Amino acid sequence: MEIKVLKDILAANESISREIHAVLSKHKVLAVNMMSSPGSGKTTILEKTIESLSPELAAGVIAGDVATTRDAERLSRHTAKVVQIDTDVFGGKCHLEAQWIKKALQSFDLEELDILFIENVGNLICPSGYNLGEDLKVLVLSVTEGEDKPAKYPAMFSIAHAVLVNKIDLLPHLEFDMTSLLSHLKAVAPGARVFPLSARTGEGLVSWLDWLRTGAGG
Amino acid sequence: MEIKVLKDILAANESISREIHAVLSKHKVLAVNMMSSPGSGKTTILEKTIESLSPELAAGVIAGDVATTRDAERLSRHTAKVVQIDTDVFGGKCHLEAQWIKKALQSFDLEELDILFIENVGNLICPSGYNLGEDLKVLVLSVTEGEDKPAKYPAMFSIAHAVLVNKIDLLPHLEFDMTSLLSHLKAVAPGARVFPLSARTGEGLVSWLDWLRTGAGG
Repeated sequence: MEIKVLKDILAANESISREIHAVLSKHKVLAVNMMSSPGSGKTTILEKTIESLSPELAAGVIAGDVATTRDAERLSRHTAKVVQIDTDVFGGKCHLEAQWIKKALQSFDLEELDILFIENVGNLICPSGYNLGEDLKVLVLSVTEGEDKPAKYPAMFSIAHAVLVNKIDLLPHLEFDMTSLLSHLKAVAPGARVFPLSARTGEGLVSWLDWLRTGAGG
Repeated sequence: MEIKVLKDILAANESISREIHAVLSKHKVLAVNMMSSPGSGKTTILEKTIESLSPELAAGVIAGDVATTRDAERLSRHTAKVVQIDTDVFGGKCHLEAQWIKKALQSFDLEELDILFIENVGNLICPSGYNLGEDLKVLVLSVTEGEDKPAKYPAMFSIAHAVLVNKIDLLPHLEFDMTSLLSHLKAVAPGARVFPLSARTGEGLVSWLDWLRTGAGG
């Protein structure tokens, strides 16, 4: 019974996801679903990214969290267009669902947007099954989390169009084997672009921004 | 309907959790449920902890993962008593459930165990609702994840008996505000013991081990 319910939920989600994608495509808005484990640096990356893309590309953000509006508040300093989805009112869900994105889109003037970032709930498991009408799925992995995470969370990594390997400024202080990470990534996400970077120092951000600009047709 | 199903699942889980607790208490086995976000260092902490407690206290481990047996393999080097639960066969669940713990317990000789560590699935959201018959819930948070995590994931932190603040050897390289973390922790988990430590260097492990030994009656 539980499985039947989940199947129904996923089918409904998929249908709304397609609707969202059609609407965003029509308005030439590139949608990017950002996913990661808690504390990997999604919000800091988004702050730097939105700042760097401005003013050529107008960015909006839908930020998902189980509690607090901290991320939305941080992101509001960089763009006026931030909508917060607090999954606490949905029982503390560990992912975002297409129906909430559809609702959140009503708060945006899509004609004014070039790129929409969806900051998913910090979680390396739950978001994988829920498409949100996005063009690109981007995984953020901090080097402090260890090189084996793609092998341990294959469902998430296998759907990524790009993987941002964040906090590389800490590499001198860690026993982190980048070759091993790349080999794990190649095994589960052979087609994903990999961008090692540091949101804090700005190192490596240029390649990621260029990739986004191409995707956004800019 | 979804909510009704979830309520039934949680009620069934709670009842099995109580059964497990009774069995473990009878055999004087201290059960410790270790929870954290992916990559915070649960497995390394357990490796060091089991090694340090031995031979006075005989430890067993039930290790949960959505994929791979990496953690179980690592832990098998330190104790012969490791059982792996791969949640992939249950649809990639993002938490452990009491029914799987009950089943896993059949693989242990409880007379020979003093302490049972349950390494939960790497996740800061899902495990909070599922009691596993444990005596102690221990949250691991790496300083690289940021000081705001207790505020962002209150359901998890509020149930913790202890919080291990791991990777403090990296503090000199981070902009991490320990006072701010402690204040966030005090707000959501006022009764929790806090142990700053580094599983890598061994700094701070002694206090955590002493606390465990007291809990284990050793």
